[in-house]
Amino acid sequence: MSSLAPEAHIATIQWISNEYFGLNGTHYDTLEAPPSPLEFGRICRISRPVLIKGHRIPGVDRWTDEYLQHVMGDRSVSVALTPNGYADAVTPGPDGRLYFAEPAVEQMSMGCLLSKLACDARVSAKLSEVLYLQSQNGNLYSSSYFDSTEDELPELAPLRQDVPPDISWCTEALDRHPDAVNLWVGNDLSVTSIHSDPYENIYHVVRGCKVFTLLPPSEGWCLRERLYPHAKYARPHPGAPLVVQPTPGADPIRWSSILHPDHDDTLPAVAHPITITVRAGESMYLPAGWWHHVRQEGGITIALNWWYDVEMQGMTWTWLSLLRGPEDVPSGNTEADEENL
Amino acid sequence: MSSLAPEAHIATIQWISNEYFGLNGTHYDTLEAPPSPLEFGRICRISRPVLIKGHRIPGVDRWTDEYLQHVMGDRSVSVALTPNGYADAVTPGPDGRLYFAEPAVEQMSMGCLLSKLACDARVSAKLSEVLYLQSQNGNLYSSSYFDSTEDELPELAPLRQDVPPDISWCTEALDRHPDAVNLWVGNDLSVTSIHSDPYENIYHVVRGCKVFTLLPPSEGWCLRERLYPHAKYARPHPGAPLVVQPTPGADPIRWSSILHPDHDDTLPAVAHPITITVRAGESMYLPAGWWHHVRQEGGITIALNWWYDVEMQGMTWTWLSLLRGPEDVPSGNTEADEENL
Repeated sequence: MSSLAPEAHIATIQWISNEYFGLNGTHYDTLEAPPSPLEFGRICRISRPVLIKGHRIPGVDRWTDEYLQHVMGDRSVSVALTPNGYADAVTPGPDGRLYFAEPAVEQMSMGCLLSKLACDARVSAKLSEVLYLQSQNGNLYSSSYFDSTEDELPELAPLRQDVPPDISWCTEALDRHPDAVNLWVGNDLSVTSIHSDPYENIYHVVRGCKVFTLLPPSEGWCLRERLYPHAKYARPHPGAPLVVQPTPGADPIRWSSILHPDHDDTLPAVAHPITITVRAGESMYLPAGWWHHVRQEGGITIALNWWYDVEMQGMTWTWLSLLRGPEDVPSGNTEADEENL
Repeated sequence: MSSLAPEAHIATIQWISNEYFGLNGTHYDTLEAPPSPLEFGRICRISRPVLIKGHRIPGVDRWTDEYLQHVMGDRSVSVALTPNGYADAVTPGPDGRLYFAEPAVEQMSMGCLLSKLACDARVSAKLSEVLYLQSQNGNLYSSSYFDSTEDELPELAPLRQDVPPDISWCTEALDRHPDAVNLWVGNDLSVTSIHSDPYENIYHVVRGCKVFTLLPPSEGWCLRERLYPHAKYARPHPGAPLVVQPTPGADPIRWSSILHPDHDDTLPAVAHPITITVRAGESMYLPAGWWHHVRQEGGITIALNWWYDVEMQGMTWTWLSLLRGPEDVPSGNTEADEENL
């Protein structure tokens, strides 16, 4: 489809941003008990984040380190490694340019992961690489499970016995199964840089605590998205430290140039971030298209999430497309942006 | 709030219009039975019209002319009168300019209304004024009923015994009572010109049939809204024909200059009207902000509607405000527009 003139497009988004903030402010609801499907349907219609207490997942109550090691045994799980905790984030490369760098991925047992995470949390980050189980590919349940075409079990399948494939009140409200269910295991050193997903998302924190910095879709224009060449962390030889390795021929990645939206002074004054802390036993509804930066507190943090496809009928997709802004964004490798990082 | 530059604003709406149509087409669902509250919540989230069969309102099954006359007795009801069936529509005034003309309103008994409507349907429109009970002020239930501050009963209160104050699946889905419930009584000669309301709307046809020509909020820009001076039909002296009487000092009214969006050739090619015929016993969900032109078929047509306030949290209001277009619209009294009518 044809694109809008960038200036008109940005002016429109700024107008929407102002109107939307005027009506909604930074309010979010906190529920003391999980919603009924009917209530959750209303919540989805409003499409603002909600902190949900009291949604129990009995199976995960037994998730001590020993239990997780025992259930997973020697199976290897894919773990993201970075020197600084920023996986899928903007990072300087070997040539001094900025890259969108994916983490290195190494295989290890759950026991090894948990012991390294416990160690990392005690010693200085400088001494160790940062590990984060964040494979987010439906590592517990993927769409093939739901449409009964699963021919290979995901890495974390042994933990399915403790995690339901869906959240009943969400499934009923949206009239669809999840597209993916993921486990996330990290510590205070791992950070997820700000981005948005085209999914309705239910997070549930099992252990530790997650601190979300959120912006509505209407304020994505404040995130100064730029184009970055693609790279991936790699270990040149066994035992060597990780280095950023540019990916030849890869398409550039559009990503926010703001690394720390959770710091007061890095967002423009017209952005109105919402901070929601989700503690062990609590859940959060993160609506489709909402921007989120996630950090963790309290040592080893274990969380689950259920992604549901966004509704494609009606206005939502058009609304989110409009708010994504012009297709052409500037290169991130300019002097101004390097100063910003 | 500050307004957008009109050119940028219109370009954005045209882009949205194209994207929205690409995703949604002119599809509408038909339900063979009323939705559950949960299902209706999903329908509202999609915000597209739905034809709903099988929603029975047992009380209205007894609504013969005789019954209605008997229940209403000699009470007077407010009836809109026009020479041409166009109440609240753009009409030439005595000076040849175009006006937004409200109907004259006269009081009569239900028996008188029904007999005149039956007669009108048989003889030529030229011989008689067109009558339409369309007071749409909560003539059955208004908000004061729901918040228990009602100190005066509406004109049609005797018919409450047959009409429930709300539609349970809608009330539960939206978690609110209606803002107004109205009865509409007219015949094939009455037309409602195209407009939109900030309400979620459930129509139910009791007798006859209503033909809706609908446009989504994204296509309102195709309706060539113009500013018209305000007028009202009046009868200069008893027995005289109705004349358009300009209203001195009234604010001009913004209204579509397209009188016949139900005719193939009056809308621009980029508009994609949807025609939905609602027959006796059928209901229709008309989402907030959808443009609708309504005509009637089958002699005396009796219908009910329940208006529910639109959700003010979230994106809907901002979306509808954006799609309403620039605040400044041209005057309707230009040569080009006169030719158009």
